[in-house]
Amino acid sequence: MAPNISEKNPVTLLGLGAMGTALARTWLAAGHPLTVWNRTPARAEALAAEGAEVADSAAAAVAANPLVVVCLLDDASVEEVLGGTDLAGRDLVNLTTSNPAQARARAEWARERGARYLDAGIMAVPPMIGVPEAGGYAFYSGSRELFEQHQETLAVPMGTTYVGEDAGFAALYDVALLSAMYGMFAGVSHAFALIRKEDIDPTAFAPLLADWVVAMAQPAVHQTADHLRSGDYTTNVVSNLAMQVAGVPTFLGTAEQQGVSPELLAPFFELMRRRLAEGNGEEDLTGVIDLLAR
Amino acid sequence: MAPNISEKNPVTLLGLGAMGTALARTWLAAGHPLTVWNRTPARAEALAAEGAEVADSAAAAVAANPLVVVCLLDDASVEEVLGGTDLAGRDLVNLTTSNPAQARARAEWARERGARYLDAGIMAVPPMIGVPEAGGYAFYSGSRELFEQHQETLAVPMGTTYVGEDAGFAALYDVALLSAMYGMFAGVSHAFALIRKEDIDPTAFAPLLADWVVAMAQPAVHQTADHLRSGDYTTNVVSNLAMQVAGVPTFLGTAEQQGVSPELLAPFFELMRRRLAEGNGEEDLTGVIDLLAR
Ligand SMILES: NC(=O)c1ccc[n+]([C@@H]2O[C@H](COP(=O)([O-])OP(=O)(O)OC[C@H]3O[C@@H](n4cnc5c(N)ncnc54)[C@H](OP(=O)(O)O)[C@@H]3O)[C@@H](O)[C@H]2O)c1
Ligand SMILES: NC(=O)c1ccc[n+]([C@@H]2O[C@H](COP(=O)([O-])OP(=O)(O)OC[C@H]3O[C@@H](n4cnc5c(N)ncnc54)[C@H](OP(=O)(O)O)[C@@H]3O)[C@@H](O)[C@H]2O)c1
Repeated sequence: MAPNISEKNPVTLLGLGAMGTALARTWLAAGHPLTVWNRTPARAEALAAEGAEVADSAAAAVAANPLVVVCLLDDASVEEVLGGTDLAGRDLVNLTTSNPAQARARAEWARERGARYLDAGIMAVPPMIGVPEAGGYAFYSGSRELFEQHQETLAVPMGTTYVGEDAGFAALYDVALLSAMYGMFAGVSHAFALIRKEDIDPTAFAPLLADWVVAMAQPAVHQTADHLRSGDYTTNVVSNLAMQVAGVPTFLGTAEQQGVSPELLAPFFELMRRRLAEGNGEEDLTGVIDLLAR
Repeated sequence: MAPNISEKNPVTLLGLGAMGTALARTWLAAGHPLTVWNRTPARAEALAAEGAEVADSAAAAVAANPLVVVCLLDDASVEEVLGGTDLAGRDLVNLTTSNPAQARARAEWARERGARYLDAGIMAVPPMIGVPEAGGYAFYSGSRELFEQHQETLAVPMGTTYVGEDAGFAALYDVALLSAMYGMFAGVSHAFALIRKEDIDPTAFAPLLADWVVAMAQPAVHQTADHLRSGDYTTNVVSNLAMQVAGVPTFLGTAEQQGVSPELLAPFFELMRRRLAEGNGEEDLTGVIDLLAR
């Protein structure tokens, strides 16, 4: 048995920023032969000491292995780095954050160059990479064959969730989940602002706030999905839109009393009011979605 | 042993709407002597058959027992109903939704009439009342003595969380938690709107969305509280404000591609940008709270 021949799938990785470096370490630790390249060569040095092969150029890195993973700043840097390489016959996995249109265009671009293409959206930060308990994962979409062939390798740094052949879906799911998170952050910010001037310890308030948001999220998300699927927004409604709109003055009045700008919540309340004005008082809040995306 | 003498604390309840009726049933089921009154007498009939004493007037109901619970539509209806009653020596527990200023004024009003006063904010809907597994509870604030004396009785319909002597705090906590929830709903609505026109089953997308929001809420809320308490918004920051603002065009661009109005998230992104422009790129998002409540 030749000690230098690994049975693990060899990987080429372009881009050794915070995320790329974390990914690289997990493949090295798992025994995958790894070829790396980074625009600024200094960032590859520590990895070389840990066993990575450092390529002289992006083209050489791409030529080294059939599986080519890129984790660069943005879609423009992917174009810049891969533009001068020969992608024919490669399996290109793009972990760079993009929007759905960029991902779809990049998939077509790769196809024209003879590569299979898989796009990804990373739902993790570098400290979660290689730490399964942290629950990080990436959405993947595009070539199902590529995904199935390399899933085991892709699963080394983080979980894998394949969401369809449309190369734009990974980015779409990624953006959708992060958008929901920012809405939640906005609500949480408003809540903390409300108690700010009172003699209330924010760390004592925090568990009440977090538990409430968590308790409300699961049933609300599932009920909304059921309503969107059926098209009937009135089934199993506990607090209907009419009752909820009646409560809005309490929220706005409290914000005013506490000296807090209502700007983060007012647009949602306004859509609730519009939906009610259209005669949908017996619904829950799902109808707001119809007003956002016509 | 006289079978008609209960050892349980007797309760007077004014207001038999959806919530009041649910409360009444739990006290009756637990063996508390219960005197009820409702403006529209028909709503008391079923409860009479279940063992409630029905008073002829609000004044008679208030006179019947030392512990008087009101659960009416709003603060104005509390004034209307209790205005003509003798509250001297009563323990008044107000479960009617109010804002903090109304609750504080009502506490003073009760004090002037010789009553101890406890305000409440109900974090439950009627189907959760009397169902401990459902996790419903009420915030209470105001007279600590009243709360301690009657906590066992108050705990029959739902959990009890006492949040301080300031009668406005129960309403403030209530509004703060619900405000955070509406922010979360806004984010979730945006997320569903993004996938709306794609061939994506919302019920398959829902668990990914719900799990993500839940996973992000706990650490974000606790980190924000720690930052507010210490005043240093740069400790343990994983994704700093500068990085997060750099991602905003991806969110806005995706919304545009999917034909979704950015109105629910744009105000939060705008505050992130402002906070960054003030030179706080190394913080997390806590600084947004400073912009909301100056
Ligand atoms: N970090 C996170 O928390 C996180 C989470 C989810 C997703 N992501 C995504 O993962 C990707 C990488 O993120 P990161 O945190 O590793 O970013 P980073 O630390 O800023 O690294 C950026 C990488 O891109 C390279 N690069 C930028 N412009 C380039 C160009 N024009 N030509 C060649 N190389 C270029 C940089 O090379 P140099 O070293 O030469 O500058 C570096 O390797 C991004 O798309 C990001 O959105 C990151
Ligand atoms: N239901 C919920 O999900 C929920 C959740 C949390 C908090 N709350 C709060 O609980 C309180 C009661 O809610 P609910 O759901 O029971 O409301 P509801 O079903 O609409 O009942 C309203 C009650 O208030 C009475 N009322 C209204 N105006 C009155 C007046 N001027 N004089 C005398 N009585 C008057 C009604 O009497 P009539 O029968 O004569 O109309 C009825 O008993 C509200 O403050 C609400 O915000 C409710």
